[in-house]
Amino acid sequence: MTQFPETPSVDPSGCIFCRIVAGDAPCHRVYEDADVLAFMDIRPVGEGHTLIIPKAHHENLLAASEEAMAAVARTSVRMARAIKSALEPDGIFVAQTNGVAAGQTVFHYHLHLIPRRIGGGFQIHGRTTAPDDQLAALADRIRDSLGESSE
Amino acid sequence: MTQFPETPSVDPSGCIFCRIVAGDAPCHRVYEDADVLAFMDIRPVGEGHTLIIPKAHHENLLAASEEAMAAVARTSVRMARAIKSALEPDGIFVAQTNGVAAGQTVFHYHLHLIPRRIGGGFQIHGRTTAPDDQLAALADRIRDSLGESSE
Repeated sequence: MTQFPETPSVDPSGCIFCRIVAGDAPCHRVYEDADVLAFMDIRPVGEGHTLIIPKAHHENLLAASEEAMAAVARTSVRMARAIKSALEPDGIFVAQTNGVAAGQTVFHYHLHLIPRRIGGGFQIHGRTTAPDDQLAALADRIRDSLGESSE
Repeated sequence: MTQFPETPSVDPSGCIFCRIVAGDAPCHRVYEDADVLAFMDIRPVGEGHTLIIPKAHHENLLAASEEAMAAVARTSVRMARAIKSALEPDGIFVAQTNGVAAGQTVFHYHLHLIPRRIGGGFQIHGRTTAPDDQLAALADRIRDSLGESSE
């Protein structure tokens, strides 16, 4: 069983990330291929907070296919390098939540890539929605670095 | 560049996780194949706190090969299911640190799988070393569930 206590099960038809994948809801896209989508978290903990999701609806890691998770992982290497190259953070924290007890708030698997600064905090969810133009500019900068990030 | 500020670069010869892979340092093994090793964190945040590492020395996500990360990701699906099946946590938090600013303390890529309880905290590093017999028993329980965890 992949279900956790006090954790809702969300049908793909009511899933915000499935709507983003389908183009029915907006996002600031950074990268997309047949299997995965990367976009800016709209409530970032800090500048450059990016999510990577499998396009297929998997509630969490336990419900996901191994191949979907391998595709996310391969993308995460390239995305982390691009974030480093574009934004020069002091570190990058990677987090993924399964179940409400672990802090999951959207019930479609998503991997957080969170740039960190020395002396900064360790939270994974921001409190306020970032302005669209700011997120768009950050998405542009990271996207621009994706091509030059294999050094 | 994969280096972060204030973050040491550790040669494989001085790397504790490389020594564990080589069998020169002990661990409570849960799973092993040609590419990855999973074992109990000796300073667990909670019962069942497990690490998955690539056997090859990669300092962090940015320095890792995409294939090594895909192998870790595939293993993480099976390990998360086994932890759920064996220990019935309320959630599982997955975390991975890159650079001291992100909380990295061992400079060989490692993925944390941390079982969570409702009302529990969100830290990723425990304060005290757990007793060997306790870790051995948890490793046994999770390992026993690996075969039956594809439900």
